[in-house]
Amino acid sequence: MKIIRDVEEMMALSRSWAGHTVGFVPTMGYLHRGHTSLMQLTRPLCEHLVVSIFVNPLQFHANEDLGRYPRDPEGDAQKCAAAGVDVLFIPEGFYPANFRTRVIVSGVSSRWEGAERPGHFEGVATVVARLLGIVAPTVACFGEKDFQQLEVIRSMARDLALPVRILSGPLVRDDDGVALSSRNVYLSPSQRERARSLNRALFAIRDHRGTVGERLAAGAAFVDSDKIDYLAIVDAEDLEPLPDDAPVTRSARAIVTARYGSVRLLDNVAIEPDPR
Amino acid sequence: MKIIRDVEEMMALSRSWAGHTVGFVPTMGYLHRGHTSLMQLTRPLCEHLVVSIFVNPLQFHANEDLGRYPRDPEGDAQKCAAAGVDVLFIPEGFYPANFRTRVIVSGVSSRWEGAERPGHFEGVATVVARLLGIVAPTVACFGEKDFQQLEVIRSMARDLALPVRILSGPLVRDDDGVALSSRNVYLSPSQRERARSLNRALFAIRDHRGTVGERLAAGAAFVDSDKIDYLAIVDAEDLEPLPDDAPVTRSARAIVTARYGSVRLLDNVAIEPDPR
Repeated sequence: MKIIRDVEEMMALSRSWAGHTVGFVPTMGYLHRGHTSLMQLTRPLCEHLVVSIFVNPLQFHANEDLGRYPRDPEGDAQKCAAAGVDVLFIPEGFYPANFRTRVIVSGVSSRWEGAERPGHFEGVATVVARLLGIVAPTVACFGEKDFQQLEVIRSMARDLALPVRILSGPLVRDDDGVALSSRNVYLSPSQRERARSLNRALFAIRDHRGTVGERLAAGAAFVDSDKIDYLAIVDAEDLEPLPDDAPVTRSARAIVTARYGSVRLLDNVAIEPDPR
Repeated sequence: MKIIRDVEEMMALSRSWAGHTVGFVPTMGYLHRGHTSLMQLTRPLCEHLVVSIFVNPLQFHANEDLGRYPRDPEGDAQKCAAAGVDVLFIPEGFYPANFRTRVIVSGVSSRWEGAERPGHFEGVATVVARLLGIVAPTVACFGEKDFQQLEVIRSMARDLALPVRILSGPLVRDDDGVALSSRNVYLSPSQRERARSLNRALFAIRDHRGTVGERLAAGAAFVDSDKIDYLAIVDAEDLEPLPDDAPVTRSARAIVTARYGSVRLLDNVAIEPDPR
């Protein structure tokens, strides 16, 4: 496995691959089984597999955890090599001097994480657009754990007609049901125990029969957190909330974000439409 | 020459060209020698040459001339065929339903045309990003006539690491010195005569020896128009105005936009730094 830190070198290599299949899994590092599952999903689809590790300052705002985002470069490299990655791209000087372009996806990015974290999805869309430009993959894989992010990226790729197939990999849970996240490392043992309530709530929402409002009430009863930022059932494509007083009639997602001290945890689960 | 109107068909064709050199000249049609000169510049650099004609509603605001922008589809097709174009792309249904992505280039797009036409460069950057995605060229060529637009596109291509070389072609003048523009067709004979003053002003600015302010005064004396939107000497890369009280010490551009009735005309000329 080759480690590349220079943006120009990565671009020269990806340009030399023109006509080949190239897979790409962008990450912020501190890799877990959620990330490696995306690599495993992408590996058979490409001749060259690239993973990037870049903690993107554009998607954090001033009082977020950019500075203390967890890092483990050696462990990350071992996991990538074991997953059959060809190139690990850890860019230095990622944004050029006078970088002045932003990619903004409206609609799907306005609610939920977009409302809680102003500018977050602008930062995500911009970094992903630039990464896709540098790596020029034929297929890029993102986790369903960040479900809204995935839909923002799908919208961008479709609207800008990017020459890449956007693939998604299912959320991966730990043995106790908690969704894998690099930020789980910040949880105290008692917070971790309470965090198990989030997936229980989502499964209750998924399995309850009734209107959207009734499902949400059934789920909310489970949540044990310091603060629920949101708990909703949304359209699986545009992320708009479904009406409270009707059953689920189309492909949907139950999404939750809750806080444990200063740690925000996200989780989600697919909701199939009620049988008619 | 093949004419393609369907976006998916154009994408399928460009994807089949992976590994080949593809040239691209995006236009709004009503082609003149300025456009065909870009095709001639690009033709030797590529195996496949694509020209697009699309009058992009995103770059016009409500009270501009979108509805009456001149059109000549048959003449355009003849000129493209004569210039050795392989594919003329005249998209129908260019923006998909729920199109929600915008590309914004700050800095270089804020002054001049950006200030006179709010949202204009956002529309330009967005349509060019989507066109580049659809056509996937290895080289794309833009006219220096729209000098600020060219710098906006260069910034975007650099920032998003687009796998395309951005080429520019010199502004082309008519025999009377007026810069070729599709909008010249709207000028009355007397407006056309007065419009000759713009290139005279620019050449006076270029040839005058003195400070920026003195050069501009020398040029302004020539301009005969209903309104000057701006007349300036700017840095050739970031389009910031050079200080009035100093000579030109770096590569610069004299730019002018002036009105004749409802017609806005743009012109520009390169200014070499004064010898030390």
